[in-house]
Amino acid sequence: MSRACLISVGNELLCGRTVDTNAAWLSGKLFAAGIQTDSVRLVADEIADIVAALRDATASADIVLVTGGLGPTDDDLTRQALAEYLGVELIFYPDLAARIEAYFAGRGLTMPARNRVQAYIPRGASPIDNARGTAPGVLYETADTLIALMPGVPNEMKGMFEATVLPAILKRQGGDVIRSANLRLFGAGESAIAEMLGDRMCRGKNPQLNCTVSEGIITLQLVATAPTASQADALLTQHQTELKTLLGSLVFGQGEETLQDAVGQLLKTKQKTLAVAESCTGGLIAKMLTDVAGASGYFQCGWVTYSNAAKTHLLGVPSELIARHGAVSEPVAAAMAQGAAQNAPADCAIAVTGIAGPDGGTPEKPVGLVYIAVQVDGVCRVQECRFPNVGRTSVRLRAAQTALNLLRLELTA
Amino acid sequence: MSRACLISVGNELLCGRTVDTNAAWLSGKLFAAGIQTDSVRLVADEIADIVAALRDATASADIVLVTGGLGPTDDDLTRQALAEYLGVELIFYPDLAARIEAYFAGRGLTMPARNRVQAYIPRGASPIDNARGTAPGVLYETADTLIALMPGVPNEMKGMFEATVLPAILKRQGGDVIRSANLRLFGAGESAIAEMLGDRMCRGKNPQLNCTVSEGIITLQLVATAPTASQADALLTQHQTELKTLLGSLVFGQGEETLQDAVGQLLKTKQKTLAVAESCTGGLIAKMLTDVAGASGYFQCGWVTYSNAAKTHLLGVPSELIARHGAVSEPVAAAMAQGAAQNAPADCAIAVTGIAGPDGGTPEKPVGLVYIAVQVDGVCRVQECRFPNVGRTSVRLRAAQTALNLLRLELTA
Repeated sequence: MSRACLISVGNELLCGRTVDTNAAWLSGKLFAAGIQTDSVRLVADEIADIVAALRDATASADIVLVTGGLGPTDDDLTRQALAEYLGVELIFYPDLAARIEAYFAGRGLTMPARNRVQAYIPRGASPIDNARGTAPGVLYETADTLIALMPGVPNEMKGMFEATVLPAILKRQGGDVIRSANLRLFGAGESAIAEMLGDRMCRGKNPQLNCTVSEGIITLQLVATAPTASQADALLTQHQTELKTLLGSLVFGQGEETLQDAVGQLLKTKQKTLAVAESCTGGLIAKMLTDVAGASGYFQCGWVTYSNAAKTHLLGVPSELIARHGAVSEPVAAAMAQGAAQNAPADCAIAVTGIAGPDGGTPEKPVGLVYIAVQVDGVCRVQECRFPNVGRTSVRLRAAQTALNLLRLELTA
Repeated sequence: MSRACLISVGNELLCGRTVDTNAAWLSGKLFAAGIQTDSVRLVADEIADIVAALRDATASADIVLVTGGLGPTDDDLTRQALAEYLGVELIFYPDLAARIEAYFAGRGLTMPARNRVQAYIPRGASPIDNARGTAPGVLYETADTLIALMPGVPNEMKGMFEATVLPAILKRQGGDVIRSANLRLFGAGESAIAEMLGDRMCRGKNPQLNCTVSEGIITLQLVATAPTASQADALLTQHQTELKTLLGSLVFGQGEETLQDAVGQLLKTKQKTLAVAESCTGGLIAKMLTDVAGASGYFQCGWVTYSNAAKTHLLGVPSELIARHGAVSEPVAAAMAQGAAQNAPADCAIAVTGIAGPDGGTPEKPVGLVYIAVQVDGVCRVQECRFPNVGRTSVRLRAAQTALNLLRLELTA
């Protein structure tokens, strides 16, 4: 079985300037392909350090992925380091230089002279095309080892890995094809989902299941191995269908879909429009909805009614209602949603009022108490939520996600 | 001079589940204390791997900081690995066990039996108090080397580092006190600022200057070294004053302040209220403003008028104006700001209309074109911005930051 070692190169990684996210992304992709990452090393832009890291890595791993240090400036030394490690010279590739020049020309620019160094590749290695930038990658393969050099810019690295490096790795894997797919879940914790999945989560299953959580969203990754791509895909499809039945409405999407993608898709399909009225989330729900390109097709407008006066004045929430129940209450949330749907006008509305903290909590209405109203075609439902008081950012995010999820459930009910 | 090596332990770091942010945070803190981090290594929860990493690290560095693997479960092996590396046994500390029990008791819980392993420390090392969790840290010092084991939970690690590990490191540094401070800047690129600073940026200066950029915000860190804390602080104060004069209105804050903190502070001081009207930023500006606790003191309300109808209906933007100039135009931005200030009502208003992409651009109005209107006490100014078309998220963030910065400049003019 293949073992990987990752090397991230760059002074900015060693002085607190930049968090290295490339290693986590790559190790996740390798994991999905059934390859274990043994270690990651972050080193400075120094030839000796990069060479030492390459020596260490190739001693234990057969797949070595290096990111960073392929730029055009004097402190970009990864190409030289690989040449020194291999004991070969750097060769100039005229067609690579022409491609870099063309990249600049395509943007109406002249290639700076220093970018010419990016057309040098160690003898015996081959260049990797970079569709998203100027720095070509470098691929070096022997029977025992694959070494790939990729840019440190995440977007360029990701494009290059998926287009060239991953296929090269999979080709070495000895015939079996590995395919993966994601289900995206919201509404239950990791351990509750693990319990529902039972022994499907055990090691050695095919597809293998891997559950990760990021900011409240659970990604269930299925990794299938089979002699052919179509067999692997069939395995994935069959298990995805089974898992969707098992997990029901907890599943909101696939791939990298977000809750706002899922809500947008439902609104488009059902040809419904949406308005939002936010108090404690302060614009976050509108921001999330409009993160999606094309949101203008269903998203009408939003109100951030932070003050009581704004709730009354802009959404028509009766001031007596606020006086009687408080701004953070079920009737006020409902009145906000009704006002938003009516004033927009829109078929659907989301309204949120709550206490995000750190101040403003009382024993009866503590920080984390949030009322979420969702109205669809005139029918309004309000849910009381009590989120853990672990910071203003967390309460606001949980409230926004829960609101989007409630609308999703109403639209699929 | 001291050299540091960092080791991050955890299987979750090697399969894409978790991005290691501890190493970047620690290397930043060490950098501020004048200590260079030579390398970072991420290893699995395996005794052999941790021991090998400790051997490598102590061969080149005199400060070795290890995070992760101090929990109570079977895969938490960092304590054992240090004992094996040192060739000593683990010793049970009854008072440490008592403290962990007290931690649980303080939360009305009984300590699970498995947490008892956290009271074992390698012979010759000493425990580090953990004010924020159950896992004690471990400090091992000889004349040549300092090794610290800290939890992987960022919050616990940070508390422990600042309370115990950093003071222990500074004590070894030979008497001199190191203090640091930040200036926060917006409105010019890193290279323009470097040019303004001239040879103040050179190595060997005291205070040393370090410039970092994160999402368009520049942090200029000053690191002063002096025999006493008050001398170091005096040096910081003097240079901060000089730099503020030199950089003028580019400086918006100190420490970790954000643009929305600075704007909020100005509005509070000047006792002015604010309303926002957003099109392409879709709620992001309101979200940023209400990220600040206490924003209800000045933030009245916000409108996300995504559709043309909403601009007219909710903000009173004349539909002929939109028909004549287009929704993305200077007069429409101004009319949105005027409408927001009037309808809120509020003393100040921000309005943004633009093309965030990926679609909707034309040769005359390309993706990235954004009009930002800022109104203060009835006087409205509009700025045309052409942000680079490097993705919807980037255009929206740049537009929101620029809008907040324009209001800041108007309020300080």
